[in-house]
Amino acid sequence: MPDCLFCKIAAKEIPAKIAFEDPHVLAFHDLHPMAPVHLQIIPKQHIARVSDLKTENAEIVARLVVVANQLAAERGIAEPGYRLVINCNPAAGQSVYHLHLHLLGGRSFSWPPG
Amino acid sequence: MPDCLFCKIAAKEIPAKIAFEDPHVLAFHDLHPMAPVHLQIIPKQHIARVSDLKTENAEIVARLVVVANQLAAERGIAEPGYRLVINCNPAAGQSVYHLHLHLLGGRSFSWPPG
Repeated sequence: MPDCLFCKIAAKEIPAKIAFEDPHVLAFHDLHPMAPVHLQIIPKQHIARVSDLKTENAEIVARLVVVANQLAAERGIAEPGYRLVINCNPAAGQSVYHLHLHLLGGRSFSWPPG
Repeated sequence: MPDCLFCKIAAKEIPAKIAFEDPHVLAFHDLHPMAPVHLQIIPKQHIARVSDLKTENAEIVARLVVVANQLAAERGIAEPGYRLVINCNPAAGQSVYHLHLHLLGGRSFSWPPG
């Protein structure tokens, strides 16, 4: 998608601090971190919203979660704990219309989650 | 798991206000709702934490997300927006050690998410 910020990051047209990459998934540091560890985990394929996932393509979000778990373990935040968040559409505060999973850790989190 | 609250809900040994059920997944209303729509979506299989998901069993979380999307559409919160949250371990506030996806909608959500 030519005008998608995260597609451009995946294509290395816009720089980001990359934390993980495989053929399907990219993880990079959030530009406005809300916790000591705050990574965005995205599919390289352009999917605008989590609501676009159906049974046929839902393995995409499974891949994002597996990468999040791996990054949480590597960065030492798994045992204390981490929060995974996906925002869908404006009321949730979705800012970029390319599916992204937030991995937040390294501090305690309050409830409700926003 | 004999002492797991959510296994007991899945087995109908403890009542809950059920929103969805299929052979693999159960969704029910959170007892302490933090939004006009606040559902818990769980696998019937006992998985303690999201961090227990690896590539081999990550389709479990994909199923939870597909059900969340379906419930969000049915309840009219998809277009304004909804937030999906998974807490892992104490720092994130995980309260029941049976994997659950929070679906929250029907209001606006602030940032950071807790």
